[in-house]
Formats: sequence, C-alpha cells, structure tokens
Amino acid sequence: MIENDEDRHFMKVAIDEARRAYEEDEVPIGAVVVSKGRIIGRGHNLTEKLNDVTAHAEMQAITAAANYLGGKYLDDCTLYVTVEPCIMCAGAIGWSQLKRIVYGAPDTKRGFTTFTSRTPFHPKSVVVSGVMEEECAEIMRSFFSRKRK
Amino acid sequence: MIENDEDRHFMKVAIDEARRAYEEDEVPIGAVVVSKGRIIGRGHNLTEKLNDVTAHAEMQAITAAANYLGGKYLDDCTLYVTVEPCIMCAGAIGWSQLKRIVYGAPDTKRGFTTFTSRTPFHPKSVVVSGVMEEECAEIMRSFFSRKRK
Repeated sequence: MIENDEDRHFMKVAIDEARRAYEEDEVPIGAVVVSKGRIIGRGHNLTEKLNDVTAHAEMQAITAAANYLGGKYLDDCTLYVTVEPCIMCAGAIGWSQLKRIVYGAPDTKRGFTTFTSRTPFHPKSVVVSGVMEEECAEIMRSFFSRKRK
Repeated sequence: MIENDEDRHFMKVAIDEARRAYEEDEVPIGAVVVSKGRIIGRGHNLTEKLNDVTAHAEMQAITAAANYLGGKYLDDCTLYVTVEPCIMCAGAIGWSQLKRIVYGAPDTKRGFTTFTSRTPFHPKSVVVSGVMEEECAEIMRSFFSRKRK
C-alpha cells in the first residue's frame, strides 16, 4: 500500500462525507473525486433518502465530477472512497476510466474483489487500499452496532 | 431459455427504447421494469447526452421504477433489457433485488457474465437470456457499423 499525505488529506474529506451520511441515518460511506489537487466531485450514500439503490457515494461523486468537467471521462482523476466499492460502483469507475482508486476499509461481503474474476477498471488504473482503514471501518462498525440496538 | 409471449411483448418495448437511443446517437440499449403486468419504469442509454457514464438504460429504468413505487426494492418486478447488463448495472440489479432479469443479446466484452465469479443478483432472482436476441443484436450491429463508416 502506497499511502501519502495527499491521500490521507483527501481520505479525511471522504470520511467527512461518510459522517454526513451517518448523521442522516444512511450507511456511512463517503467519496470524493480529485483532479490536479482539487476536489471536483463529492458525495455520500443517499440510498434511503432518495429511495434509490444506485445513490451510492461513488456514483454521486463520479456524476458530480463529470458534470463539473463537462465530459464523462475522469482519466486524470483520483477517486477516494471510505469503503471498498461494490461491483455497481466498480463498474461505474471502469466506465469513467478513473486513473486512480484509493479506498479505506475492505468490504468482505459486497466489495468488488469478492465478485470479479478480472479487473473492472481501466487497464491503466491504479488501486490503493487501506488508506485510513481503521477510521473508515470504525464509522461503519459504529453505525451497524447502533442499528442492532 | 424460457421465452413466452409476455416476455416478447415487453422486450419489444425495450427495443423501442433502444431505437430511441439509436436515433439520439447513443449506444442503442433499452430497458423496462414491469410489475404485475404493468410497465413502471423505462429508459434508454443516455451517457453521451448526460455526459454521465452511469446513465445506462437499466439504471434509469430501475431508478424510475423505484421512484414510481416509492420504495427502492423491486422484488416483485421483472427487468427487460435488450443487451446483457454490464457489471455496474448487474450490481444495481442486485441491490434492487429484482425478481427476474430478462435480456436479449449477450455482450461478450463487457457483459456481467464475463466479470463475475458469483451471481451479483439476489439469490432468488431468475435470469432469462436470448429473448428476441437477433433483433436486439441487430440494432447494436447497425449502430456500430454506421459509426465505423
């Protein structure tokens, strides 16, 4: 895992997004898309509020970034997301040609690595996992432990 | 493959959606969601017009159906789509718990069956492929052959 200060900086912003989801009683996952050191898209899970299974954090951050750029390819961008993307989001990441994907905690039940037998991303994309993993995982644990009470 | 008159009827509507995409110079794929014999969501590929890689036919039909029902689970619904879903759409289909997935032509490059090592759908979901396959494939062939000219 190649973790650097910039990755930690942007992952903290993704964690802030996850906290917003938590406060809205949504599964607490957050994401940001960064181009040339600037955040051009951000989002958090809103599946409950929007009654829409496709309203994952990554989908919203990707759509927002493409909207900002006025083009659908994010091939000079990095996506930061607090939890390993599911295959829906992994598919969207692949279509968008995102250059770099950085995630925090693994998702051993629904993460893309549990489904895919070949990479769903662009062949040149780089994947970094485990950035601020403990912080990202703790928000999820706290949320589901509260739900079970 | 279990093909019946109802499947052919609704696949024809999905093909009409694909033709709309074709006319708008979008990759010609169409989808409808049916509940108790009624269409409650429909869509066609709009990735170019919306500058959004997530704007696939299935995503729009699923979102429209959930919006119509006021709930995000489509567990008594059937999705008809002219071409085998990609993994992004397969993931969305799984999250939505769609009961039945009927598609026309295979997608040997980007179809979910080329990626997934286990089913991305709800364990109880039924998948039917090859309904009006030739008609669905012909629209795609015609589109890409025109593009190459």
